[in-house]
Amino acid sequence: MRTLRAVAELRAALAQTRRAGRTIALVPTMGFLHEGHLSLIAAARDQADEVVVSLFVNPAQFDEASDLDAYPRDEARDAGLAAQAGAHLLFAPPVQEMYPAGFTTQVRVQGPLTEELEGAHRGAAHFHGVTTVVTKLLNMVAPDVALFGQKDAQQTLVIQRLVTDLDLPVRIEVAPTIREEDGLARSSRNVRLGGDDRRRALALSRALRAAEQALAAGTSDAATLLAAARAAMDDFDVEPEYLALVDPEDLRPVATVDQETLLAVAARVGQVRLIDNTVLSPELHHRRGYADGDPPLAAGVNRTDPQEV
Amino acid sequence: MRTLRAVAELRAALAQTRRAGRTIALVPTMGFLHEGHLSLIAAARDQADEVVVSLFVNPAQFDEASDLDAYPRDEARDAGLAAQAGAHLLFAPPVQEMYPAGFTTQVRVQGPLTEELEGAHRGAAHFHGVTTVVTKLLNMVAPDVALFGQKDAQQTLVIQRLVTDLDLPVRIEVAPTIREEDGLARSSRNVRLGGDDRRRALALSRALRAAEQALAAGTSDAATLLAAARAAMDDFDVEPEYLALVDPEDLRPVATVDQETLLAVAARVGQVRLIDNTVLSPELHHRRGYADGDPPLAAGVNRTDPQEV
Repeated sequence: MRTLRAVAELRAALAQTRRAGRTIALVPTMGFLHEGHLSLIAAARDQADEVVVSLFVNPAQFDEASDLDAYPRDEARDAGLAAQAGAHLLFAPPVQEMYPAGFTTQVRVQGPLTEELEGAHRGAAHFHGVTTVVTKLLNMVAPDVALFGQKDAQQTLVIQRLVTDLDLPVRIEVAPTIREEDGLARSSRNVRLGGDDRRRALALSRALRAAEQALAAGTSDAATLLAAARAAMDDFDVEPEYLALVDPEDLRPVATVDQETLLAVAARVGQVRLIDNTVLSPELHHRRGYADGDPPLAAGVNRTDPQEV
Repeated sequence: MRTLRAVAELRAALAQTRRAGRTIALVPTMGFLHEGHLSLIAAARDQADEVVVSLFVNPAQFDEASDLDAYPRDEARDAGLAAQAGAHLLFAPPVQEMYPAGFTTQVRVQGPLTEELEGAHRGAAHFHGVTTVVTKLLNMVAPDVALFGQKDAQQTLVIQRLVTDLDLPVRIEVAPTIREEDGLARSSRNVRLGGDDRRRALALSRALRAAEQALAAGTSDAATLLAAARAAMDDFDVEPEYLALVDPEDLRPVATVDQETLLAVAARVGQVRLIDNTVLSPELHHRRGYADGDPPLAAGVNRTDPQEV
């Protein structure tokens, strides 16, 4: 696996790939790779001949300087993991290669998709930072397919909208959230969970599971489901920034879960802001039921087959 | 020449072109083609194997509903002219093909490039509308080169910045302004100049020429040059919206013309808003001098060889 830092080098390498008739998959990351990223790389290998992993901690999408400063980085470790997972090329540009002097363009997905949930708490500028850098990466790499994780559910909706609206010639694939054994969604930020915070971080996945269980038990009323989720968080003494049942297309709150509904949660645990989500599907849960001994959020555990948005 | 209306058809046709190893040039237009557009199509033929002309009156870049409504349209005439000029494909999508239900993304070049001159008078949203539709067209067509007219000088700067910032894989070429015999810059809006307004519209090109002559006579002071230009407009009883000598890179006002400087003007003549510009180059004018019998703005007259920005 080669590591490249300059856009011109990247373009030259990929022009060769394309001339050889090989297809290209892009897995954009901010590094500090975990099992979630590695599952994306594995899925990418099934989707294309060559896999490009980008590693760029994008300052434009951080709403807090402290979060940017604290974001964990270890490029040597990332390069080893990406190579092991089967990536062909690691693109790890310095900030000035992505945003040279004079840079001033922003790509915005406007409206509820970027203003609700994460947008309401981090500001829509977070997503504008994401869509700007993703547009750049897609234009640099020109991949046949780009892969994103369902853990960032709202981000995947925003990116699909971006690709549709700007006619970007790429297929977007979304792969399921990968979790720790106890249900915590894998995240690069988890390494910052010190002491008891690692245990308290379970508040998010347990809240999702509590709602799934209540739904499986026959409750479809959103307020009741949210109360069950909230009670699970209270057990860990974790306050949600938001805990919302919304339409997975437009993020509008729903009153009743009578079709696929996104349950999304964000909370600060110690110094670390965490997010998680699950898609509630009434038919599925009614059919299958739910027992206390089940692994949490069975629908999303360690599946690596991507599903199209 | 084929006329296509759907993005999918366009992509399919161009995929064939590309498979055949042929290069593609894009000339984006809002239709009602004039000699300026035709010179762009001719230049495009020199730059690539196949020329795509897009014809789309982009609602997103109109700041006045009345201007959008009054914008002249005649697709049959445009198709004839484009074919005659050597275009291979006319892409004329309906509005809902470019902006289907749910469309919500905007591409913004931020800062002085979109806030000064035209931005100050029409609003920066005008340029955001331009950069959004140009990004879409570039993504749909994926041309090797795209051509724009120097008449919209600020637009060419904004688009070059867009392409640089978003890493769009395309070369931008800018072709000189094409003028009527008497100096009026060709514009689709000129057909709306009724009665005495056609004569009064000369105020713009004569203002540019007056400044060029003053420069050639040895004045490099911006205020003096602008006063000469303004006096020429007064002769036609036309009030400029702006008349500015600015750095052609960042649009900042200059005090002295000691290097290439953009002289830009906008004015309303009757119901029609017109713009024009010239690049003042002290050395050039000192060397060549200027006589009253010269064609106006000799540097930009009927040259069809494009020059890179």
